[in-house]
Amino acid sequence: MVSLKDRDIISFRDFTKEEILYILSLSKEMEEKAHPDLLKGKVLATLFFEPSTRTRMSFESAMKLMGGEVIGFVDPGATSIAKGESLRDTVKIVAGYASAIVVRHFLDGAARLVADTVGIPVINAGDGSNQHPTQTFLDLYTIHKTKGTLDDLAIGFIGDLKYGRTVHSLAYALAHFRSYMYFISPPSLRMPPDLLKELSERGVKFQEITSLEEVSDRLDVLYCTRIQKERFADPIEYGKVKGSYHLSKATLDRSKVKKTLKILHPLPRVDEMDESLDETPYAVYFQQAHSGIPVREAILASVLGVKELD
Amino acid sequence: MVSLKDRDIISFRDFTKEEILYILSLSKEMEEKAHPDLLKGKVLATLFFEPSTRTRMSFESAMKLMGGEVIGFVDPGATSIAKGESLRDTVKIVAGYASAIVVRHFLDGAARLVADTVGIPVINAGDGSNQHPTQTFLDLYTIHKTKGTLDDLAIGFIGDLKYGRTVHSLAYALAHFRSYMYFISPPSLRMPPDLLKELSERGVKFQEITSLEEVSDRLDVLYCTRIQKERFADPIEYGKVKGSYHLSKATLDRSKVKKTLKILHPLPRVDEMDESLDETPYAVYFQQAHSGIPVREAILASVLGVKELD
Amino acid sequence: MVSLKDRDIISFRDFTKEEILYILSLSKEMEEKAHPDLLKGKVLATLFFEPSTRTRMSFESAMKLMGGEVIGFVDPGATSIAKGESLRDTVKIVAGYASAIVVRHFLDGAARLVADTVGIPVINAGDGSNQHPTQTFLDLYTIHKTKGTLDDLAIGFIGDLKYGRTVHSLAYALAHFRSYMYFISPPSLRMPPDLLKELSERGVKFQEITSLEEVSDRLDVLYCTRIQKERFADPIEYGKVKGSYHLSKATLDRSKVKKTLKILHPLPRVDEMDESLDETPYAVYFQQAHSGIPVREAILASVLGVKELD
Repeated sequence: MVSLKDRDIISFRDFTKEEILYILSLSKEMEEKAHPDLLKGKVLATLFFEPSTRTRMSFESAMKLMGGEVIGFVDPGATSIAKGESLRDTVKIVAGYASAIVVRHFLDGAARLVADTVGIPVINAGDGSNQHPTQTFLDLYTIHKTKGTLDDLAIGFIGDLKYGRTVHSLAYALAHFRSYMYFISPPSLRMPPDLLKELSERGVKFQEITSLEEVSDRLDVLYCTRIQKERFADPIEYGKVKGSYHLSKATLDRSKVKKTLKILHPLPRVDEMDESLDETPYAVYFQQAHSGIPVREAILASVLGVKELD
Repeated sequence: MVSLKDRDIISFRDFTKEEILYILSLSKEMEEKAHPDLLKGKVLATLFFEPSTRTRMSFESAMKLMGGEVIGFVDPGATSIAKGESLRDTVKIVAGYASAIVVRHFLDGAARLVADTVGIPVINAGDGSNQHPTQTFLDLYTIHKTKGTLDDLAIGFIGDLKYGRTVHSLAYALAHFRSYMYFISPPSLRMPPDLLKELSERGVKFQEITSLEEVSDRLDVLYCTRIQKERFADPIEYGKVKGSYHLSKATLDRSKVKKTLKILHPLPRVDEMDESLDETPYAVYFQQAHSGIPVREAILASVLGVKELD
Repeated sequence: MVSLKDRDIISFRDFTKEEILYILSLSKEMEEKAHPDLLKGKVLATLFFEPSTRTRMSFESAMKLMGGEVIGFVDPGATSIAKGESLRDTVKIVAGYASAIVVRHFLDGAARLVADTVGIPVINAGDGSNQHPTQTFLDLYTIHKTKGTLDDLAIGFIGDLKYGRTVHSLAYALAHFRSYMYFISPPSLRMPPDLLKELSERGVKFQEITSLEEVSDRLDVLYCTRIQKERFADPIEYGKVKGSYHLSKATLDRSKVKKTLKILHPLPRVDEMDESLDETPYAVYFQQAHSGIPVREAILASVLGVKELD
């Protein structure tokens, strides 16, 4: 039996392959059928020490669509923290008001600290540059839904692979399956060597390249991330990189991508992906964002113990 | 059959007389009887890119009184927009989290853009100086409720008739009915000529005057608006105007108004209407504000398709 | 019959001993049994003109756990007040959207003004330095729950007794019962003479001292408050006071306190109470904070008229 009852959802590293598949399967069930009374009487506290409208709204919608209730705050300035209260005290008190906590914090490791402090399930909605596991679950769910499998796929990651936490977490998660990975980035924004070493040890086959053209005809999935100007000391260097990693309908028409290619992006996008892409069959990033609802429903229902796998 | 299922509520210009009467009649039904489970399982997203506590709270209360749920934000600073995301992307994502959107935005035309972008119903809760149609519905509802009709009334509009969007929209809406309009304002704040021309073409009889005294004994309804200091280059000019358009119990006692006169105001008021007025039988502006609940219930139930007229 | 239907909860001075005992007894009932549909169809407006995350979240959770709904704001900047609207107008309008109001305001007396303005029940969640009656109810509830009685206890109050409104209100409330009070504070932060006079007149036995050691072996309950730096003209003086009123496991081990001593604190704490205290059997302040839920459930259910005492 797989049960995530009372489990904290802090890092993807805490999950077995079996547990991942269970969450994906439960997400599908959630998407196919409404569960309007599943979490009646349960209260979720959403503690956003740093804003993230998309993530907060999708957790709130998920909770409410299952009949649960939500309390919370979005502004650290409006809390007792402004009076000097410790994070531990704040969450100890909130734990008495709620059945589970979703926390987003600007510091790496904050979610684990919260989970170690309280007795109710804690879900990490992003802690600093560290982890954002529910994003990875919905990335996996979208790949699985649009490609029908997580195995034997050629998956490209493009953009800022050095600082992009969604890429690190997704690559780690996909290592449970038999997919080939292409890491496409400027030399200064490559995947962290430690993570590559770990992927190798787990038997992942991958290749590091600098241009999409080299592999565009082979890819089943392309996962894009935003390249942030702040990562470059030299604005001219940033301008060059930005241009060569910009995706549009025209870029894709020029390169010989598979007709079945699916493009994902954790959003928000700024310059790296043109709106012309939106109407192509490649674009699944809005569908990906919408998957936040069933995937977060599945996670909430699991940790609150109302759903288990026999 | 009148159905507003899946309709966007952007401008009063989009509604036929039959549709207006249907919303007013449904609002009455909503006021007379609780509908606690009508919108169970539906989620409303309230996207307030500019604050409007009254409007937001009345939409939220309306939704919740019908068993629906609400997600949303009130602060553009706390959203992905701060990261440079386009309005179109933001609302495309939110459309996957909700059954309908209420949007308030500081730019004219923003609500129409949102409606054109998403596939779920969008309700305009005010876009710049442009439209605020649910306010007009509740203005009409209050006139109809307190006077028993929308026809054959003498209706005065007083204050800032140049910039006041509620006045423009209400005058436009009332043109569907047979009422006489008096536009009472300082010369610099008269009704826009284009709108007057349009009213004429639609057969509306009206008169422009500068002082309430000229018509006070004839009015059935007086609709007041705030005169904002920022509209005057010369503060002395503002002071004069302010004084002569200030309403109080004493002003009304002096002028020979009908005993059945009803005074409306979209609120908030600042200086233009004295608290002494509140306890007179003329004052219906708080009742008007409270009508926001049944009127918005009617609109939400209509666009979400749970109420139709046979 | 005791009924608090339609009552405002503004100051502890408005309650009889019988009413206090009724709320405590109803709080116990609320804690022991879920009431998921008790307030279905009721809407609570939480108007926080000044932030108080803990209080707001516990009211919201209480309301929602009983099936009620919540609307509100936390930021005065985002309201019509910013446009110059009076507090009276704001709450008159909100009264049309809700079944009850919880208000927190930075001005003394604001809650009474709100209660006098609207026809629905108003609960004071803190007005300036004045009153915070639901905090006092949960303080009483915690003492009663952990000691089994409110009579014949030796109760110490330590810290800032001059400005601490929770202390004033709790001492006033406890005067209904037969307990001995020790007021432990630096000379500059003693209890207000007027309040001491009133306690005397009501037959309370008490003693003012400057050091916990003098009475530590006699206390059944110790109620701590934060000493704020701003209260001292001289930072050196503050440093001295702070040191001598700092509580830790070590402090308590040195002094000969009863094994059954219970330590309360309204929280947030900053320096005055060490985390080492948390795991001792003395510490009940997190339990005290969590009591906010059943106590506020009891108060909401009472004023909304769904619970009465035969």
